[in-house]
Amino acid sequence: MDSTVARQLRAFLAGPYADTRELVLGSLEPYASVLEDAERLPIDEFRDRVRDVVVEMAGSGLTALGFPKEYGGAGNIGASIAAFETLAVGDLSVLVKTGVQFGLFGGAILQLGTARHHEAYLADTVAGNVMGCFAMTEHGHGSNVAALGTVATYDRETREFVITTTTEDAYKDYIGNAARHAELAVVFAQLEIDGERQGVHAFVARIREAGEPVVGVRIADDGRKMGLNGVDNGRLWFDGLRVPREALLNRFADVSEEGVYSSDIESVNRRFFTVLGTLIQGRVSVGGAAVTASKVALSIATRYALQRRQFDTGAGDDGLETPLLDYGQHQRRLLPLIARSYALTAAQEVLVDHLHRSFGGDLQGPEDPEVYRRELESRAAGTKALATWHATRAIQESREACGGAGYLAENRFAALKADTDVFTTFEGDNTVLLQLVAKGLLTDYAGEFSSMDQLELVRFVASQAVDTVVERASVHKLIERVRDLLPGGDGDEPDIRDADYHLAMLSFREEHMLAGVARRLKGGIDRGTPAGIVFSHVQDHVIALGRAHVERLIHEAFVAKVRAQPEGAARDLLDKVADLAALSAIEADRAWWMEHGRLTVQRSKAITAEINTLCRELRPHARDLVDAFGIPDAFLRAPDLV
Amino acid sequence: MDSTVARQLRAFLAGPYADTRELVLGSLEPYASVLEDAERLPIDEFRDRVRDVVVEMAGSGLTALGFPKEYGGAGNIGASIAAFETLAVGDLSVLVKTGVQFGLFGGAILQLGTARHHEAYLADTVAGNVMGCFAMTEHGHGSNVAALGTVATYDRETREFVITTTTEDAYKDYIGNAARHAELAVVFAQLEIDGERQGVHAFVARIREAGEPVVGVRIADDGRKMGLNGVDNGRLWFDGLRVPREALLNRFADVSEEGVYSSDIESVNRRFFTVLGTLIQGRVSVGGAAVTASKVALSIATRYALQRRQFDTGAGDDGLETPLLDYGQHQRRLLPLIARSYALTAAQEVLVDHLHRSFGGDLQGPEDPEVYRRELESRAAGTKALATWHATRAIQESREACGGAGYLAENRFAALKADTDVFTTFEGDNTVLLQLVAKGLLTDYAGEFSSMDQLELVRFVASQAVDTVVERASVHKLIERVRDLLPGGDGDEPDIRDADYHLAMLSFREEHMLAGVARRLKGGIDRGTPAGIVFSHVQDHVIALGRAHVERLIHEAFVAKVRAQPEGAARDLLDKVADLAALSAIEADRAWWMEHGRLTVQRSKAITAEINTLCRELRPHARDLVDAFGIPDAFLRAPDLV
Repeated sequence: MDSTVARQLRAFLAGPYADTRELVLGSLEPYASVLEDAERLPIDEFRDRVRDVVVEMAGSGLTALGFPKEYGGAGNIGASIAAFETLAVGDLSVLVKTGVQFGLFGGAILQLGTARHHEAYLADTVAGNVMGCFAMTEHGHGSNVAALGTVATYDRETREFVITTTTEDAYKDYIGNAARHAELAVVFAQLEIDGERQGVHAFVARIREAGEPVVGVRIADDGRKMGLNGVDNGRLWFDGLRVPREALLNRFADVSEEGVYSSDIESVNRRFFTVLGTLIQGRVSVGGAAVTASKVALSIATRYALQRRQFDTGAGDDGLETPLLDYGQHQRRLLPLIARSYALTAAQEVLVDHLHRSFGGDLQGPEDPEVYRRELESRAAGTKALATWHATRAIQESREACGGAGYLAENRFAALKADTDVFTTFEGDNTVLLQLVAKGLLTDYAGEFSSMDQLELVRFVASQAVDTVVERASVHKLIERVRDLLPGGDGDEPDIRDADYHLAMLSFREEHMLAGVARRLKGGIDRGTPAGIVFSHVQDHVIALGRAHVERLIHEAFVAKVRAQPEGAARDLLDKVADLAALSAIEADRAWWMEHGRLTVQRSKAITAEINTLCRELRPHARDLVDAFGIPDAFLRAPDLV
Repeated sequence: MDSTVARQLRAFLAGPYADTRELVLGSLEPYASVLEDAERLPIDEFRDRVRDVVVEMAGSGLTALGFPKEYGGAGNIGASIAAFETLAVGDLSVLVKTGVQFGLFGGAILQLGTARHHEAYLADTVAGNVMGCFAMTEHGHGSNVAALGTVATYDRETREFVITTTTEDAYKDYIGNAARHAELAVVFAQLEIDGERQGVHAFVARIREAGEPVVGVRIADDGRKMGLNGVDNGRLWFDGLRVPREALLNRFADVSEEGVYSSDIESVNRRFFTVLGTLIQGRVSVGGAAVTASKVALSIATRYALQRRQFDTGAGDDGLETPLLDYGQHQRRLLPLIARSYALTAAQEVLVDHLHRSFGGDLQGPEDPEVYRRELESRAAGTKALATWHATRAIQESREACGGAGYLAENRFAALKADTDVFTTFEGDNTVLLQLVAKGLLTDYAGEFSSMDQLELVRFVASQAVDTVVERASVHKLIERVRDLLPGGDGDEPDIRDADYHLAMLSFREEHMLAGVARRLKGGIDRGTPAGIVFSHVQDHVIALGRAHVERLIHEAFVAKVRAQPEGAARDLLDKVADLAALSAIEADRAWWMEHGRLTVQRSKAITAEINTLCRELRPHARDLVDAFGIPDAFLRAPDLV
């Protein structure tokens, strides 16, 4: 039923893992009714239903493609992320439960453990025979994992670790799978030997036996949540839980029988962030799933806007009212969001490719693998932040664009909105993640950058020359290449639809913000202001820098992918979509470019007008654009809307 | 426990109906547990619980203050709105059910009916002895009420109206109270006599008897919704439902026994919009409730940000981490939203005052009462739009500012977010409402303005000189008074914290947009473009005009109210809050002023810097600022957050 163009667009969006995506859609389709179960079933029944679906899906092998073949996986990290992204077409409790079991729990065993852990747990985890949870977050320290209050003390006598929740608010909280299903947990705790702390380490521990908590573990239910009620989030307290010495996930550090600690990574901080770095797949997964969720919402709203007619009674040529999408305001509401979903898809594809190469050992060429990994962490953090905020906005806008009908639970918006809401905070709060991105830029991904706290960052930047900070940044090289394209440069005013012009604008903003932030941090310290206050005053600028960087990466990825397409109708359409995405991003912050002499008043107004023109040009292709998202009708779940 | 300043601020916000608000808080407090019932109870039990609470509250007399004393009310419309606004502190299903019963159903009987209806229904309605619903919206025609497909035909033989759902999608939908509790309905239908249509009229009809639908009525349940699940929304089909001739709510039109139609209002359209105009209280109520909801969310998030410490380990003077609210970004996140809640409170107070005077017959002075009423409709529409969008944003931002904890149902955000979501579309879609505002400005509240469809509007404007449109607008007079304050005018650059400067900026934008929209509409028609296309192309500009107008009204109201305060600490604080609210509004659209020569690059940057400074100055008063919202702890429902 899809048009040729829609099929081409769909292939464009599906990218290198198109086959995997089709397989996942096929195996997900029998479970479309889970969307109804979410409302129909009492919470514990729904949780069990979701668990059953996850376990059944595990049988298909599609939920664990990233694991080594010997444990039932396919050894393909890229495909595993593509599969996860596609799962977001269906019920999002199933998605998140899958993420907890195979991504967080299984991923931690794989990445932080060694052969003994792999042998003991991976095959059963991949097959869904054993359920696990990932016990990192504590109630008292949401985003500050280094300050955890769970402690694992080595008992030389028994050669065990004794895990204890040491302060009132140090219980593990919001842990998916913990309230009801998990038998095992990867527990993050401060490792302590003879009173000496070695930093946060991970242990695998049994927390439940025959459905009951084991001795030394107390479990409470987080209860109902705004959404994702098929995931049993819970709280864990440890009261001297004893685990054998071998329970330490010892890829990066170990403790001998005699209690001697050893690690190839000297700094406590660096060790910890190496551990965290291996968990990057969670962020990549959430960002990708958010983009899928935005596509579901936009598919519904667009199809509704094409069939719903309103208002100017009898005005159309056919004597009917006008379809909603013929209204300029309605085009403005949906089409730029559709374009952004395209752009984010391309950005996500680049990210997944980097991840695949980095973790798949397929890293070639001159790059320093450590720097490559750090840039990857930064890209993952930033893409996750912007993708999840995009999902929140696209779902909200789509809901409002469907009026009161969008509010009924029988249509998917209610669940989509409630389920995705937490994406902006889990796997890292978006604001914190953008700070991480900015830190990378400000330190040129120095070895220790991700482990620096804000005060260390301020002092580090203050110790450098601003020019050094800027010149080392990758955007600086880009800027030199494209400077002529910028208004205020030497060239003529470029074509408003020139993608190089868009990228030059985005790059200029990034470089200028980088210099500005560095100057302000340095200036503050030079004037003797305490580092904490300096940071607080510059923080909005720091976050804006992180955002500017990620915006540039997103559009760069999209433009490159479009340019790689063959000429033809689909390519022409994609050029327009890319123009719309980039010009919308520029319009949203056009004041900034005016303030910095890179956008004239006339040009600024021209951009707004051009966006309206692009919306009108894309209007006839709206159905193709959303059909290309490839959301099966069964998952649109909007009986009266589409 | 509140400080003196907090008490003064609280009195400022409570305004003239402070006593009413206290009474409502007192009578609401015993029902705080409804917040838990919302999750705890199965849907039908929860609906019944909410019904019981509404009926019990009716006993206090506080839910029907706007009704005449002889029917159990207090004859005080202003107090009735204040009471409703305060109810939004509690569970929002209780609020909306109250709104349906007393505002929509009771209000329609009062405003559209005459003595016979008042005698028959009002006392029982006010006491909660009989439950009613308001059956206007149809599935097929959400916002286009004039095109309803329910028809009431007069049967001269039996002297009855026969009400029928004539097309497949003309069933009444989303009707609160219909699925389970309502015995009566005010039904909106096309009145037809001898095949001649007289436009939409309202009828009161029994739809349920002893719990079962009466003959001629079919009822279905809309089922679960994203939120507000204590309200039983439903669908109604009429299959020749017979009601006596006296069922016509005949304040504005009547049908004699012989079937002769009569009305003092000649135009069908005008008659219909007179009917709609009496229902304005619903919009005023929803807008006010949205502001209250934003205050609940901001109270939780602010108190959390004051106690939650994070991140830069050991950096504070006291060896503790830094409270969240000491971070510049966190201040930026919450304080401008708090300031906007203050501004909207002031704007709502002006609106309620106008409503009170208009409907309470207390209208004095030279104003043309009809124009006054139309301006009131416009103000109500615009304030509702901006207040409900503010609530959506403030609740979302507050939720994210509380991280994962904000996602648990045991904290109030989940319910607040889900329950308020529909506020942006019910009682009129916000986008449509802002168009209504712009229509009023473009036509200078011409008698027929609200009934004009978009094409008529375009043609009307095109028939005028642009100068005429602008010069008649009230903003034009304002502009003449303040022109000197605008940069680019003759005076010096005004103080960045000068409220007159802020208002001049907001007024200039409004007037300029008015002229721009008029010129573009006229230009399009002059060039021979079809009116529908002209409108579609200019629609985003039309909506921006509506928004600019309402922004000006909001800040005008806030500044006036602050200026009426005595000197002192509270006043000093309010001055800063007003500066923050206005500068934030200007910053959000600063590109526009730059594009139109009224903001230099330097000044634009200075505004951003000044907002950060104001945030820091207000930071020590954050607790007072939210304590002044007066949300009792029982309703914050955020056990681990505050």
